[in-house]
Amino acid sequence: MKTINVGLIGGGFMGKAHSLAYSAVPMFFWPTDLIPVKKTIAEASEDLAADAAARFGFENSTSDWRSIVDDPDIDVVDIATPNHLHAEIAIAALQAGKNVICEKPLARTVEEAGAMYAAARATDKVHMVAFNYRRTPAVALAKRYVDEGAIGEILNFRATYLQDWSADPSAPLSWRFQKKIAGSGAVGDIATHIIDIARYLAGEISSVTALTSTFIKERPVQGAGADSLGNTKGGSSEMAPVDVDDEVMTLVKFASGAVGSLEATRNAWGRNNFITFEIHGTEGSIFFNYENRDELQVCFKADGDDRRGFRTVYTGPNHPNGANLWPIPALGIGYGETKIIEAHDFFTAIAGGEPVRPDFGDGYQAALIDHAILMSAETGAWTDVPLLDRETGLLRAAV
Amino acid sequence: MKTINVGLIGGGFMGKAHSLAYSAVPMFFWPTDLIPVKKTIAEASEDLAADAAARFGFENSTSDWRSIVDDPDIDVVDIATPNHLHAEIAIAALQAGKNVICEKPLARTVEEAGAMYAAARATDKVHMVAFNYRRTPAVALAKRYVDEGAIGEILNFRATYLQDWSADPSAPLSWRFQKKIAGSGAVGDIATHIIDIARYLAGEISSVTALTSTFIKERPVQGAGADSLGNTKGGSSEMAPVDVDDEVMTLVKFASGAVGSLEATRNAWGRNNFITFEIHGTEGSIFFNYENRDELQVCFKADGDDRRGFRTVYTGPNHPNGANLWPIPALGIGYGETKIIEAHDFFTAIAGGEPVRPDFGDGYQAALIDHAILMSAETGAWTDVPLLDRETGLLRAAV
Amino acid sequence: MKTINVGLIGGGFMGKAHSLAYSAVPMFFWPTDLIPVKKTIAEASEDLAADAAARFGFENSTSDWRSIVDDPDIDVVDIATPNHLHAEIAIAALQAGKNVICEKPLARTVEEAGAMYAAARATDKVHMVAFNYRRTPAVALAKRYVDEGAIGEILNFRATYLQDWSADPSAPLSWRFQKKIAGSGAVGDIATHIIDIARYLAGEISSVTALTSTFIKERPVQGAGADSLGNTKGGSSEMAPVDVDDEVMTLVKFASGAVGSLEATRNAWGRNNFITFEIHGTEGSIFFNYENRDELQVCFKADGDDRRGFRTVYTGPNHPNGANLWPIPALGIGYGETKIIEAHDFFTAIAGGEPVRPDFGDGYQAALIDHAILMSAETGAWTDVPLLDRETGLLRAAV
Amino acid sequence: MKTINVGLIGGGFMGKAHSLAYSAVPMFFWPTDLIPVKKTIAEASEDLAADAAARFGFENSTSDWRSIVDDPDIDVVDIATPNHLHAEIAIAALQAGKNVICEKPLARTVEEAGAMYAAARATDKVHMVAFNYRRTPAVALAKRYVDEGAIGEILNFRATYLQDWSADPSAPLSWRFQKKIAGSGAVGDIATHIIDIARYLAGEISSVTALTSTFIKERPVQGAGADSLGNTKGGSSEMAPVDVDDEVMTLVKFASGAVGSLEATRNAWGRNNFITFEIHGTEGSIFFNYENRDELQVCFKADGDDRRGFRTVYTGPNHPNGANLWPIPALGIGYGETKIIEAHDFFTAIAGGEPVRPDFGDGYQAALIDHAILMSAETGAWTDVPLLDRETGLLRAAV
Repeated sequence: MKTINVGLIGGGFMGKAHSLAYSAVPMFFWPTDLIPVKKTIAEASEDLAADAAARFGFENSTSDWRSIVDDPDIDVVDIATPNHLHAEIAIAALQAGKNVICEKPLARTVEEAGAMYAAARATDKVHMVAFNYRRTPAVALAKRYVDEGAIGEILNFRATYLQDWSADPSAPLSWRFQKKIAGSGAVGDIATHIIDIARYLAGEISSVTALTSTFIKERPVQGAGADSLGNTKGGSSEMAPVDVDDEVMTLVKFASGAVGSLEATRNAWGRNNFITFEIHGTEGSIFFNYENRDELQVCFKADGDDRRGFRTVYTGPNHPNGANLWPIPALGIGYGETKIIEAHDFFTAIAGGEPVRPDFGDGYQAALIDHAILMSAETGAWTDVPLLDRETGLLRAAV
Repeated sequence: MKTINVGLIGGGFMGKAHSLAYSAVPMFFWPTDLIPVKKTIAEASEDLAADAAARFGFENSTSDWRSIVDDPDIDVVDIATPNHLHAEIAIAALQAGKNVICEKPLARTVEEAGAMYAAARATDKVHMVAFNYRRTPAVALAKRYVDEGAIGEILNFRATYLQDWSADPSAPLSWRFQKKIAGSGAVGDIATHIIDIARYLAGEISSVTALTSTFIKERPVQGAGADSLGNTKGGSSEMAPVDVDDEVMTLVKFASGAVGSLEATRNAWGRNNFITFEIHGTEGSIFFNYENRDELQVCFKADGDDRRGFRTVYTGPNHPNGANLWPIPALGIGYGETKIIEAHDFFTAIAGGEPVRPDFGDGYQAALIDHAILMSAETGAWTDVPLLDRETGLLRAAV
Repeated sequence: MKTINVGLIGGGFMGKAHSLAYSAVPMFFWPTDLIPVKKTIAEASEDLAADAAARFGFENSTSDWRSIVDDPDIDVVDIATPNHLHAEIAIAALQAGKNVICEKPLARTVEEAGAMYAAARATDKVHMVAFNYRRTPAVALAKRYVDEGAIGEILNFRATYLQDWSADPSAPLSWRFQKKIAGSGAVGDIATHIIDIARYLAGEISSVTALTSTFIKERPVQGAGADSLGNTKGGSSEMAPVDVDDEVMTLVKFASGAVGSLEATRNAWGRNNFITFEIHGTEGSIFFNYENRDELQVCFKADGDDRRGFRTVYTGPNHPNGANLWPIPALGIGYGETKIIEAHDFFTAIAGGEPVRPDFGDGYQAALIDHAILMSAETGAWTDVPLLDRETGLLRAAV
Repeated sequence: MKTINVGLIGGGFMGKAHSLAYSAVPMFFWPTDLIPVKKTIAEASEDLAADAAARFGFENSTSDWRSIVDDPDIDVVDIATPNHLHAEIAIAALQAGKNVICEKPLARTVEEAGAMYAAARATDKVHMVAFNYRRTPAVALAKRYVDEGAIGEILNFRATYLQDWSADPSAPLSWRFQKKIAGSGAVGDIATHIIDIARYLAGEISSVTALTSTFIKERPVQGAGADSLGNTKGGSSEMAPVDVDDEVMTLVKFASGAVGSLEATRNAWGRNNFITFEIHGTEGSIFFNYENRDELQVCFKADGDDRRGFRTVYTGPNHPNGANLWPIPALGIGYGETKIIEAHDFFTAIAGGEPVRPDFGDGYQAALIDHAILMSAETGAWTDVPLLDRETGLLRAAV
């Protein structure tokens, strides 16, 4: 077995999740083609970086992400920074011949995302955007059912992403509430996840109508102790405006003729990471809620009138990736497992010289949808979404 | 105690539900002001009417609804027919000085509803539209919480009404799929119920954007055995077009500044009478699902960080109307109970000479929203909803 | 159609439930063989009885239950009194040639129950004990699945009946806490319901080991306003001892070789009418919870490894008695509907000259199990349950 | 920060879970006192051991567990073997001065467990038995509520552990079905987990009555490919008897006066890792189900009559160990996280020179309960459980 050297940029929440995945990939997927080596981690200062290296098990540390990009020993660049750094780092890394995995959303704007996709197309390296939720085994099982035709033709796809971690107006103004760093609010941060799931399960979105809200219009400035990668470290008495949305609602039309809706909010008291989707097809329905992420609910028309009902399929060894996770169902899937599968699929693609999905093209397409949503929220009109042509790299008018 | 004579027009599903309520009102609400007497029932033929009278316990029967309206001994006219008869009967009954309760939707069109409301305004009798779901104890409890400020200011109100009884294309073309009888499809039949709940809990809707679909475009003609009041009695090999929607999705803006969404469909395999709403407020959230109608889920911000979560409040004697229903919680609320409470409130209003809600004004306002939804679905544009001014009976432009 | 005259003894909670059923039976089951006529109701005083007659729609009232038993116009005697009157009334009514329906538990003691069964055997009239929960459509559906072999051979049957209406020590000492009236506490009042369900679904119980508890050892004496039929009407400052159990737990062995457990308590805060059972069979499992009584959960081994899971079958027209209830699923089953079905089956038996189950034999067998449970709770030993031989009316030693 | 060297014996499912924990502890708990170093892993052959070392990231490998026990560089011995090796390895390791963590059950028999506890008492090293489920954040939250008195005095504690991974008779005869290796069946393998939770939350168990069953009496012999550490690797056509229980049901009495029940089975189709408990106290109730392990349901009497209901508290940063796990609730707790917390607490104890719970004393006490259960299942009698006196190391008669 060969090893592959990883440079990780960002030692916050995502740095932790990705580090766990790098340690765990061979434990879970064995034998494996490539064993990741945690080579170098970058953080905002030398001290923070050294601390992160000790904590996450990296051999080296640096305060300059460019030294990772420039390091010929590094095979993979992992971008786990706030959004405003994604484009610059990713383009540099791709141009330096690295395989790149980038946290979501791919970028702050559709322009940045387009440039990143162009850079990715110009290489033969593997690029991936970390929409990890589609790798939840139950979500992958939904995909299997859809692909098998088990619920027939999709008529309606509805998804929500509801949170409350910032429903309290006293929650500080972290970078996620600042347009210059984040690009947008709930749209790019969380709606983008369900947009990815919508595309994964129901195909391309061709048109949207949307409204966005910013219910909490100012928040306390973060204390000086806040690190530059965005973790909130307490508030202050000084207030500053929120210049991004904290809620978005849309109706959508799919290229297939299906319709749907998407809703994301940070103001839903009691909802934590409430990623749900419900699909109505001609032959059945599917429901999923990430808060009970081990379970997929599916109803088959074919079950017959006196035995039909939503089945709660509890994912385990018999379901996607299950044989590599835990030996019986309901030992339980956590956030870590979604990241372990994601990392595994990324390394498998590198080993096989094959692309992986979702890639920067998917990240770009999601950005195009985000953009249409934000435009529709301003105009009130149905707004078409250009469709990326993967053959040419050009955008086509919506179908 | 005095009695009050009821004439019921229609002996189908709704006739059954209302008859049950008339027998049960004194059993549940005792002592009571007015004991309803099941005087006369009308059906499409003399035979059907006589059969219905025996079944539902009416003293007399008739094949001519006008004989009920004209009967001076009748105090209450109950309209449980398909939609196309509502306006004619209701206006006649009101003009004859009767108290009137009419099944929902109030009418096929906004014009009919407006005329009915005008007729109602011209009398001092009690008029009611049978949006029974707001009388589910858990829904009334949600109203109580909202009114008490327990969840603060409402930010978002989302509701669904999902069914599958006609998801199968072989389900026959009953009157509910015919525009000339029903007026509209999912919009008037089921969306109208969640529109009523939205108005009850979150206030007036000022603007909508919507899309409607008709996924199943033709259905088998009903067999000759189908009665004129609309019960399906088997299909045939002849097909006829469906000229109403079978699904509707909307985004809505409330006069209060809150936003929301409404979705209704008859194509949701596995969903039966899936009336849900979720409200996000500044101080908490509420969730309800009629499929588990005894329960209201509520989350209070004030509960504190280590004990906060959705409470499943199981309604019983301590909740709205509970002391009159069953002596302990979870003996269980069924459809009948919502109708018993509705009937009781109707008779209490008559006894007290007070109006009851939802009345024909509410039915008219719901029709105005239905109309705006259907218009928006054609134009794709946000469409304002005129607001009924109850003082003048005139429509005002949306706020 | 013929009518049948009913005399009801007891105008409390059960009187209300039964009266509702008598009005509703023809509305729901139509055409019907026998239309019940609410002839006479008995209560503790003339005034109470007259009031009950007006409320529940009876033609006559009396303070003397014997006048009902002696009335040649009465065909059915319905016993809805506290437990201490069951035996005397039932035996008198049977001897007077009446059909008898008696609330559960059949009697205070196994001796009383045996005498009642003997009286029943001596007539050709229909007798029924009102274990209504087995008539919940979802419970009847469980029976259908079991009988069809859909879950194979039963290995384990576990049931609970948890309540909290008297978990508060300040709840008054109603007759349900007095041995001389009730016979026993949680054992006879609620455990007996799940014993009936156990027998219905898993067959005869042959042996038990049990423990009982009385956690709340004294309660406030009821106020003078309490009626003799047992409704609590406020407490007093005087305390009196509780001489019955308020919790019972058992392990059980079935004649079939299956095992199981039963638990009933009145001390479960947050549980209201939490009647649950779970059955593990060689080919599948079933779960039910009356608090969501429209639903039956069933898991079939045969569903295959990647699609197996508990199905939530939402009962409706396609399930037992469903076509007679409401026209689509999830309009909702309440307590009333279980009683309507029970009454219908009772009248159908009378009309057909056939026995109905559960009858006094079932009530007696349940009393034998109650008795073994109470004995085992005293001795700590496994205690065999004699089995009633319906051919001879004699008890056999347990298998 | 110092490091600590770990020797792990066993590279199966548990070896994987523990290895993940060793990598993750510093990532999650930072700064940390001791960073574990994965020094040496032992497996049944040199090849298997070398493979496990590469997979799990150990520096060295061996086919002889004694070389780990004898290695002066090893500080911690981790026993992740089948049960029959626990006692020998643990006693040797303790005598060699190692800190020891041992998978559950502590041993095959009460005698072995007693000897292990004696060896542990004779050292000043840290010993721990891996009852990881009590470290699920929601379970630890239940403990917090109990300790705070939030549900008052415990009256009843009921737990289940239901699985179906071996409900199919064709599942092979792994070591878990062989008494000479496993000691017992469902009793030691899974009931022991809920016994630990029962003791953790409700205190010592003083007496039990039980029944055990072996529904599947023979199983296919495992194929030759089966490794000696017990992973099933396909079956054969040869059958061999199962000599352990596959189901156990008990009633229990606690020293506190509370009562309860425990049930564990491997025959529950559709139940996967269905570890549930429900506690009824004088001031509230708690419910937990590991299949939705992020959630704790709690009902407080104090919430008042119109707002009381089970709260679903979704664990996250505000709950036990939550700040060290993931930054918002509902990213999700998996099996891995329970093991990471367990390992962290073990190393914290070593660093601080303090004991940790559950230790070998807890494992011994659990074995005493297992033993009483097995004895009661034979005799049918209530059986007292001796209580370990931690001061003296002697057993006392049950209270």
